[in-house]
Parts: sequence; structure tokens; C-alpha cells
Amino acid sequence: MAYHYLDYNSLLTFCHSLFTSYGFTAQESESITDVLLAADLNGIESHGIQRIVRYDHEITTGLVSITAKPEIIFETPLSLVMDAHQCMGQLAAKQAMESAIQKAKLIGCGMVAVRNCNHYGIAGYYAEMAAKEDLLGICMTNTEAIMVPTHGRQPMLGTNPIALAMPADPVCFSFDCATTVVPRGKLEVYAKQEKPVPIGWGVDETGHDSEDAPQILQNIIQKSGGGILPLGGSEELTGGHKGYGLGMICELFTGILSGGLTSDRINRGLTEGTGICQSFIAIDYGMFGDKTVIRREFSDYLARIRSSDKAEGQTRIYTHGEKEAEMRLARRQNGIPANEKTMEEIRKIAANRFPLPREL
Amino acid sequence: MAYHYLDYNSLLTFCHSLFTSYGFTAQESESITDVLLAADLNGIESHGIQRIVRYDHEITTGLVSITAKPEIIFETPLSLVMDAHQCMGQLAAKQAMESAIQKAKLIGCGMVAVRNCNHYGIAGYYAEMAAKEDLLGICMTNTEAIMVPTHGRQPMLGTNPIALAMPADPVCFSFDCATTVVPRGKLEVYAKQEKPVPIGWGVDETGHDSEDAPQILQNIIQKSGGGILPLGGSEELTGGHKGYGLGMICELFTGILSGGLTSDRINRGLTEGTGICQSFIAIDYGMFGDKTVIRREFSDYLARIRSSDKAEGQTRIYTHGEKEAEMRLARRQNGIPANEKTMEEIRKIAANRFPLPREL
Repeated sequence: MAYHYLDYNSLLTFCHSLFTSYGFTAQESESITDVLLAADLNGIESHGIQRIVRYDHEITTGLVSITAKPEIIFETPLSLVMDAHQCMGQLAAKQAMESAIQKAKLIGCGMVAVRNCNHYGIAGYYAEMAAKEDLLGICMTNTEAIMVPTHGRQPMLGTNPIALAMPADPVCFSFDCATTVVPRGKLEVYAKQEKPVPIGWGVDETGHDSEDAPQILQNIIQKSGGGILPLGGSEELTGGHKGYGLGMICELFTGILSGGLTSDRINRGLTEGTGICQSFIAIDYGMFGDKTVIRREFSDYLARIRSSDKAEGQTRIYTHGEKEAEMRLARRQNGIPANEKTMEEIRKIAANRFPLPREL
Repeated sequence: MAYHYLDYNSLLTFCHSLFTSYGFTAQESESITDVLLAADLNGIESHGIQRIVRYDHEITTGLVSITAKPEIIFETPLSLVMDAHQCMGQLAAKQAMESAIQKAKLIGCGMVAVRNCNHYGIAGYYAEMAAKEDLLGICMTNTEAIMVPTHGRQPMLGTNPIALAMPADPVCFSFDCATTVVPRGKLEVYAKQEKPVPIGWGVDETGHDSEDAPQILQNIIQKSGGGILPLGGSEELTGGHKGYGLGMICELFTGILSGGLTSDRINRGLTEGTGICQSFIAIDYGMFGDKTVIRREFSDYLARIRSSDKAEGQTRIYTHGEKEAEMRLARRQNGIPANEKTMEEIRKIAANRFPLPREL
């Protein structure tokens, strides 16, 4: 499939115009655009502009409320529960992580759980918000059920990413991974590219392996059984129960602690909104001693790993966040890739209302 | 390999006598025994009495100090850093989790990082200490390096289990998993049983797959390369970088935040002790609302998962902690299994000093 390479700055202008056109303020549109394009810049194509079509659908059908404001439901010096009232996920999420950061700066740690929210982009964006303030940041979200528990054939958990960012030099350690083998977005990319998915990623409605991305996605939407496997695969022998358990931890911190919905009750098809829940944690690692020493020791450890012996045939060991940092530099220069299907979606949504992003 | 089934109560007496004989007080011996046998009761054979030979070695060679007392190095209302001064891991760990629990009860959350410690048994034991106080408990430990990072062939991370326990009815949710595909102890069990390990668990000194448990373990001890793979396996395609990243999170909370050693610098062979580091977190989930409601909602979600559709050929979906709860009942009644090699080790260590545990 042919790729178009879009100039970053004109894509920024395009997205900003698009979100403003729905009724978001200039500042809100800027926030949403920043999170959205962070995914493309980081090379996480699945969560970037290929999701514009989904956001457009959710906003124009009213699943995402343009006017709703997040409400604080419960608060202690350390914690906060927020009802997002189905506002745009990125907006509630940024506010939530800002609250967690504020609490961490005051008392050492802040934990914010958000309910009745929507898709918020990449979890790592919010964890990195804390890291930019020299704090340890953690972020999790549940999603519509997509993960089949070990020995099951009905999706009961979401993709459930866990993100953690910790300041380090020269590159921030930034981990952001679905607790499924792959996120749903990766199947969407395979479906758009009309490629079969590797065995071990997903199962059909009977619980058997499937290579058919559109079918797996269709089954998930229609809730007809089957879904994506937890990290570790379908068997306990390969640790499938571990990915399933990590997914449960995510449900606990998001759907349960927020008093919201668990993934099995989240439904994109409902008119009353998705009800996705999120969790935002900021920790001042100065609670454990001299921050300069801790940061240096961590940076040194990352450097030792990067320079450790490579497996035969391999030339480089990455630490988490390095690939994304390099990708950001490259994509600002060489453009953001968009496949033909995504380009079509963007053209349709733009519908001559705004100038399309400039191709390189 | 033939199994012996040991009466639980007489095994309790045996372990108590054994640890007292080294010089631990009655209360200390009781604590160590409680953690040790919790592993066998839970069916985690790798971390139970088969480890007595290792503890005996570490105690009698002075790697574990019998007289050392953990020292508080740094403290805030929320956090504590402890130097265990190479005391018995279980003793520092119980004290650390008790501090975390106390802080959580006072302020909502307690985080304790411990350095210069030793092997402490199963991580889940300490997470469950918090759950027994109606708190959310988290526990992590690093270990001697055993995990090869993605694209590497040199162990740079430990087995690095992450344990989380959250009160639920009728059974506490209790997750306790190595971030490697399998823990080192499981290779030890395979080695004792002279069984080949499944492909995908470990690699040899060149970074290629190996089925040879004794050789993998020998390589790790001699630091001649190769080791155990992260959860998700050797490839990014199957999520190996995720297990590696989760292992890194464990290193951050243990070796880094405690100001101690990361796994690549831990060495069981040194005379000055291992230097293993741990992390203990307790969270009062009442910080997020009505505890009765949160606990009930979580229990209901667990019940929905257990009763969800099974994959073809499967009859039961477990939630984490269920198997262990059932195993505890069974093993108290039917005895604790010990293979011939473990029995020999126990006989040798007892050396007519104490009565052996009664076989069933």
C-alpha cells in the first residue's frame, strides 16, 4: 500500500482547524492535536491520524460531548476521582494528569481515576507529562472489551495499556504497552493494509487462532466472541495468564477505582457514550532520596543495558523510549506517513472545508 | 520422579527448628517459615522447601546475616528507604510491608524501597499482607540477573516478579508473576526432574534457544551469557519488549529507588552478600470512594469473568488467586509434595539434628 508523507506543520494546522470546526476552543483543539500527533511522531501509527475517522464519528454522533466539563467527584490530598461526563478523552486526561502532578509536587504522590471518559490517544503521552516535570508518571486506560481471558473465548478485558515514564539522560525511559499481545490499532492497520495477522495475536469466535484482522475486529464490534490474546499468548506455558493478570491490574486502577465501567461493559455502539476509564499517577521520586543521584544511577543502568552483548545477528539493544525519540526527529523532518485509506478518510472529512495537509 | 507428601504441621515444626538452629529467634523463625511454606501451600513449588538448600548455604556461609537489623535510611510521610544490611530477606520484607501498611492507614499510601537485602520468597506473600488489612498491596523484587533484554544475550535484569493483591469476595485477587516467561525456580524444578524445558523459555550463550535447564542455570551462575527470556519471548512481534519493559519497571522500583543494586550488579557468589532490592506499596483504596462498593464491584467483575464463555476444550476460567486458595486447602489436607532431590537435601541439612517432617 502506497504511503503519503505529510508535512508535520501543515498537519498540525489541519488538525487544529478540524477540531475547532467541531466546536472545541482553540486551546482544546491544540491539546487534542498535540496528543494525536504525538502518536504519529512516535511511530505509533495505530493511534495517530488513522484514528481521525473514529474521532469524527464519535464527535459528530454525540458519543463525545463537546461541551461537557470533567467534574471532581471525590478528593483527598493524594487522590481524586473525576467524572469526565463523556467529554473528549484527551481533555479530561490532560486535566487529570495535571492534578496528579500538582498533588505529587505538594505531597509526593498523586493518583487520579477518571470515569465516563472516551478514547484518549496514547497512554505514554500522559506518563511523559509527569516525566517532563521530573516526576515518575504512570498511566493506564481500559477500552471496549477486546482481550480474551486465559481459557476463555469472550472478550472481557480491554487492550489495557500500562505506560510508565521516568526521567533519564539522554533519553527519558518511556514504556507504553498494551497488555494484549498487540493493541487493537495494530489490527486496524493490518486490516487497512489487507495483510494477514501473525498466528498468536487473535482468536475467532470458537477460541481458535485466526489470521483474519477484519473478521477479528468485526467479531469484537458485534460481540460475537473471539478477540485479541493477552501478552504471553493463549497458554499458561507461555505466560498468557500473566498478560491477562496485567490487564486485570489495569481494570482495577481504571474502571474499578474510578467507580466507572470495566471493559466488558464499555460499548462504543451505545448512544450514551463509551464510558472508558483511566488512571493517572505521578510520583515525586525525591521521596526516595537525592533526585540527581537516582536519575544518574538509572541513566547509567540504561546505558549498561544498551551496551551489553547483542544476540547473534542483532546490532542494537534499545531501552524503552529511544526508538520513539529517534522517530520524532525523523518524522518532523521527513513527514508523517499516511496510507491511502487514511488519506481518503481525511479527504472525506475535510470535504473542501479546510486545506489538506501538505504532502512531501 | 517420585514425590513424597509431607504433613504440613510437622513440616512447620521442622522449618521452625531449622531456622532457630541457625540463631534466629523463635519469632523470626516463625516469620521465615510462614513465608517459605506459603509458597508450597500455594503450589509454587519453586519458591518453597526446594529453596531450603539455598537458604542453608546463604546462612551458613554468612551471605545472609543472622544478627543484622534493617535500618531506616530516608523517610517521608509516604515513603521509606530501608537498608536491610544483608539480613534474612523475609524479615526485612515483612517489616517493610508493615511500614507501608501503617503509612497507608495514616495517609492513604505507603511506599517502601529496600536495598542490600536477600531472597525473600514469594512476592505475593507481601502483597497479600496488605490485602489482609483491606488495602491494595503491591510488591516487587529484583534478583541476580537472569533475563536477557530484547536482542541481547547477556542477562541484565532479574526474574523481577510483580505482585498485586486486592481484596475481593469470595477470594482475594492475587497476581504474582515473574516478568520473565518463567521464574528461575521453575528451571530449578525442571533441572531436578531432569526434564527438558520448552523452547521459548531460555537461550544459550549465543542467544539461541535452549532446552537444557542445568546448562542455562550454570551459564547464569558463571555469567557466561544466555539466560531466561522476558514474558512475550525473544521477538517484538510476540511482545518480548513488553516483558523486558515490565522487568525494567521492577528494577526502577527496587534497585533504583532504594539506592541499591540493579540485577546486573547482584551476585550470589560474592562474600559480601547478594544486595537484592525490593519494593513494597500499600494503597488504601478508600481514597477513591466507598470501600464496600469498590470491593463489591470488583468481586462482581471477577465473577463475570469466571462465568464467561470458555474456549473450545476448556472447562474453567480462573481469576488470579483462586488456584492458590484451592491449593492451600488441598495441601493442608493431602500434604506438601517434595521430590526425591529436595528430600535428600532436607535429610542432609537435618543431619539427625531435628526430626524430619512426617510423610503421609
